[in-house]
Amino acid sequence: MPRILARYLIETAHPLPAAAESMAGEQSSGTFVDVPGETDELRERHGARVERIDELETVSEPSLPGSSPPEGTTESDATYTRAEVDLSFPLENVGTSLPNLLTTVAGNLFELAPFSGLRLRDLEVPDEFAESCPGPQFGIEGTRELLGVHDRPIVGTIVKPNVGLSPDDTADIVETMVESGLDFIKDDELIASPPYSPVEERIEAVMDVIHRHEDRTGETVMYACNVTGDVREMKARHDAVVEAGGDCVMVSVNSVGLSGFLELRRHAEVPIHAHRNGWGALSRCPQLGFDYAAYQTFWRLAGADHLHVNGIRNKFCEPDESVIESARACQRPIVDDSDRAVPVFSSGQWAGQASDTYEALENVDLMYLAGGGIMGHPDGPAAGVAHLKQGWEAAMEGIPLEEYAEDHEELRRAIEKFGPVGSGR
Amino acid sequence: MPRILARYLIETAHPLPAAAESMAGEQSSGTFVDVPGETDELRERHGARVERIDELETVSEPSLPGSSPPEGTTESDATYTRAEVDLSFPLENVGTSLPNLLTTVAGNLFELAPFSGLRLRDLEVPDEFAESCPGPQFGIEGTRELLGVHDRPIVGTIVKPNVGLSPDDTADIVETMVESGLDFIKDDELIASPPYSPVEERIEAVMDVIHRHEDRTGETVMYACNVTGDVREMKARHDAVVEAGGDCVMVSVNSVGLSGFLELRRHAEVPIHAHRNGWGALSRCPQLGFDYAAYQTFWRLAGADHLHVNGIRNKFCEPDESVIESARACQRPIVDDSDRAVPVFSSGQWAGQASDTYEALENVDLMYLAGGGIMGHPDGPAAGVAHLKQGWEAAMEGIPLEEYAEDHEELRRAIEKFGPVGSGR
Repeated sequence: MPRILARYLIETAHPLPAAAESMAGEQSSGTFVDVPGETDELRERHGARVERIDELETVSEPSLPGSSPPEGTTESDATYTRAEVDLSFPLENVGTSLPNLLTTVAGNLFELAPFSGLRLRDLEVPDEFAESCPGPQFGIEGTRELLGVHDRPIVGTIVKPNVGLSPDDTADIVETMVESGLDFIKDDELIASPPYSPVEERIEAVMDVIHRHEDRTGETVMYACNVTGDVREMKARHDAVVEAGGDCVMVSVNSVGLSGFLELRRHAEVPIHAHRNGWGALSRCPQLGFDYAAYQTFWRLAGADHLHVNGIRNKFCEPDESVIESARACQRPIVDDSDRAVPVFSSGQWAGQASDTYEALENVDLMYLAGGGIMGHPDGPAAGVAHLKQGWEAAMEGIPLEEYAEDHEELRRAIEKFGPVGSGR
Repeated sequence: MPRILARYLIETAHPLPAAAESMAGEQSSGTFVDVPGETDELRERHGARVERIDELETVSEPSLPGSSPPEGTTESDATYTRAEVDLSFPLENVGTSLPNLLTTVAGNLFELAPFSGLRLRDLEVPDEFAESCPGPQFGIEGTRELLGVHDRPIVGTIVKPNVGLSPDDTADIVETMVESGLDFIKDDELIASPPYSPVEERIEAVMDVIHRHEDRTGETVMYACNVTGDVREMKARHDAVVEAGGDCVMVSVNSVGLSGFLELRRHAEVPIHAHRNGWGALSRCPQLGFDYAAYQTFWRLAGADHLHVNGIRNKFCEPDESVIESARACQRPIVDDSDRAVPVFSSGQWAGQASDTYEALENVDLMYLAGGGIMGHPDGPAAGVAHLKQGWEAAMEGIPLEEYAEDHEELRRAIEKFGPVGSGR
């Protein structure tokens, strides 16, 4: 019988083997609970197993409040050991249901009394999941094909101001953007379909601009229209996007949830751009919640084509290693290359982070979004887009940015404004 | 224009007014970002407002990593001030969309650089939300009516072992349970519709037992069948429940998400029992995530009839004050009494917590679930249920449990086994 593998970072004042067994027991059929009907056969068939315990450092203070110290100790005189623990669960316990997988590997166990820290780090699912879940419909290859952009990152930006623009105002800003030569434009997560800018009206206005640009230049620009809402709203908005000739929808995945997202994915004819706002609540405490490596697995299996990963030297709190690890996770096959998602880099990005991003990922199968890095270029948005492309050329050719800037004016001017090269915008 | 009010607990090394303004700006139209098209008129109409800042204690260490200290200080020499901050957002920014409300009040802001702590504590929405969102269809009154149980808590239990039982095994255990005289039985969150116990088969087997019991005794027992899954699965399973004469469905809300839940609610003909597994990841770090007062607002507006709140002296990590505050929040009207949800107490419950629970809530409009407190009673499950009802009679009459036990044998025997009275099971 195939098994699901979940990797946790734990912190506990209890002996590690007993603590790990209590996780396995709580999330399946436990050996520590005496329940009529819980036969040896049932435990053998349905019990979660502790596959590995790797002891890490010890700390003197519990990271999270509320844990129960072992008998005979108090919270303050106990010592707390961290460890990485692998549990495996029989596939049969869950089937291939993503919502029920989440309950199994990341349900009540965050609140178990022996733990002053518990974080889901990684997840490996049997191939049955990929066969049964929709997965990305477009991924990097499908997105590149729609855009006709190959062998470099997909360069894009975000419509700002993030709230308050009417459909016509949005179209005006999009007009400036498409003229700058970029590949991709997305809505901000704060505008979905509010009364002052219903998707149905906004998509008409924006696609009119984009279609005129395409007719004129032959260049495609992808617009990720934020369709976040109820299931029926998302489906209707998706249809309005397709009807207007649009080629991407954006969804705030944490706001929508797995079941609603799956329903949209099964309905979708265009790539789904997955925005992860709210992710900080699930990840910012180092001893609680999720690593993105585990979390993105759910959204990819559910069918996210593009997944936000923040950016190197971003304006938020996330360290660069975490950003890179997230991007690598999105690109790592679950079963095969067809289930890879496109990591979306954004927040404070300009050419200055291109070479570090490229060195870490060793490929260009990504989206690289800049706001100020494009719109704030001293010579305007077209120069902003040009400087980003130049920065990535330099990165891919292994040429230092300053050197490449010697005969690339837009890059040179960007370094003057946004530099030094090792910094974020 | 009506406004949405969100209350946060923050921790920051920056001056409080500037920090609060940065939250408002990031989540609406900010005054700190210079963007073309961001007019004064737009800011006036769409900007979030800082309504109140209430300074609290100062700490010397940041609670969360990654925050940027003010210029001229380092992370270690900065001091960190906590405060409660109220922000208001124009309703027009969001409309009455629950997923987009979540993105607005609890999206990217958890990752904002000035903050070493950020937690959403409470939420007040304009009446327009209640008018537009489905809300609880049954709540306490509707649930009482279905059950014919009034003037006392609804007493229930959870089918165990939590995984591995076939439909017939489940029915056998339910048979013992219904004979014990309880009102309510629920599935464990770990069993939804796995290959070894599809909902369609389980509900037939269980309802057969319940119907025979009802025919014999005239007493109704509610069975919350766990239908968690994709939207189409949940709808089909709901229909199977109704078809079999069932009267409740259970959903793991965090696994399903708001959009899928809303879709089920609009389809539902029976109460929805909302299980909050995974809640620990959103709440256990005191300076991050959500208070339940805020979180439960989303699920009630979306239509949860019953909402889990843990229990006093529970087996998990949550302190009693938090449990009580959660239960009070579920019972507090958003607009009026019709939108109150039933708080569901569970985890280590027996009669010993009845009087403390009653004193804190001052009402009995709740579910009181016990596992071991019923099945582990020395004289069997019927005595287990009897002792719970006796415990609540004592609580409501203000009689000390030990005194009431003098002429209530089941209670007396329970105190012997589960006591002393101030303890959890």
